[in-house]
Amino acid sequence: MVAVAGGRKKISESTIRRLSLYYRVLSVLEKENYQTVSSRELAKREKLTPAQVRKDLSFFGSFGTRGLGYPVSELKKQIGEILGLNRVWNVALIGVGNIGSALVGYKEFLRQGFRIKVIFDNDQRKIGSNHKGIKVSDIQNLEQDLRENNIEIVVIAVPATVAQYIVDDVVKAGIKAILNFAPLNLKVPPDVFLRNENMSMELEYLSFALKNLQDGKGTIK
Amino acid sequence: MVAVAGGRKKISESTIRRLSLYYRVLSVLEKENYQTVSSRELAKREKLTPAQVRKDLSFFGSFGTRGLGYPVSELKKQIGEILGLNRVWNVALIGVGNIGSALVGYKEFLRQGFRIKVIFDNDQRKIGSNHKGIKVSDIQNLEQDLRENNIEIVVIAVPATVAQYIVDDVVKAGIKAILNFAPLNLKVPPDVFLRNENMSMELEYLSFALKNLQDGKGTIK
Repeated sequence: MVAVAGGRKKISESTIRRLSLYYRVLSVLEKENYQTVSSRELAKREKLTPAQVRKDLSFFGSFGTRGLGYPVSELKKQIGEILGLNRVWNVALIGVGNIGSALVGYKEFLRQGFRIKVIFDNDQRKIGSNHKGIKVSDIQNLEQDLRENNIEIVVIAVPATVAQYIVDDVVKAGIKAILNFAPLNLKVPPDVFLRNENMSMELEYLSFALKNLQDGKGTIK
Repeated sequence: MVAVAGGRKKISESTIRRLSLYYRVLSVLEKENYQTVSSRELAKREKLTPAQVRKDLSFFGSFGTRGLGYPVSELKKQIGEILGLNRVWNVALIGVGNIGSALVGYKEFLRQGFRIKVIFDNDQRKIGSNHKGIKVSDIQNLEQDLRENNIEIVVIAVPATVAQYIVDDVVKAGIKAILNFAPLNLKVPPDVFLRNENMSMELEYLSFALKNLQDGKGTIK
């Protein structure tokens, strides 16, 4: 797999997102016992154009066979490797409120190789308690515990008011990848990858659509 | 507010997303008692260019004053109206497993005007129980309950294996906006707005970044 390390320096956010989508569709196709899949079928399932699919996949070194398409399992494996899903990642979760508790029980994470190894909270009633087999640690020991557990990705599920302080400590501990559920824009140094998961933004998209785009008043590109 | 109904027919998904981001930043600025904000400051807080900010806001009929910038509260109100946040939306949640339960307690939804009014499940042990003051209804009564409660947006938090069947019933009940947490691509008619919330996709972005983009090997556009 040459992929990105092979010289190409820029990859767009939307390409990475499409790779995740291909990975999902290929997983479904694999379960449905498909051996091969055409760029047309992949495109249809993702609402993309076949040309876009072929371009994406050739960019990553995968070429379908005319008339046969792409081998499902092999392509899934390849894309999984590109996405870093062929290994287990050590994840820490900070905050076990509503969202945090749900994430601990979210089986999809582990299925993709994201293993929540440590959980932190600052609530004395929660510290020491057990969530799906993981003991809740005191956030006071954050830096040390992140290092000792070789944590690579941190998930932030704390109230917005304290999120920036906590992220500053996470960055100090050398973490380079953060998934943030707190509804605010966190500041991190340029060498730290930060993704925001904002569930009400998707609802806003829907309210926007309901308000503005029904009855032929407009469309979303 | 002329906005989209005023003749412009196409608006991109990314523009709607940026409006949500402006709305968030303006909410923070309002709390911090800012009266006005420059396009430069808005751009900085959202990692956009000032030109992009000015373009977006002028598209929606808002013009800053040179040297003074945009009035924070007024602009927030305007964008809130465009996004449909100046009213309460009736939301139904289907599925009270890990994710569903977390969503019921997610205060941000209600703060933005998204009120979970009905909850459905198919588990007899859950039906009739109370989640944050909302009684869990039997999914058998889905269509009738959606109509009687004037539900406008449905949130799907059921296992992937049953999600499509449930969405088909939701569509039959006349619902035009769906937020899906199940990890699969749902099929809906073209007049139904569907958004997917896939939490492991954001983690995949991070694993991709950690795997491919560190040590100067590449950057994300």
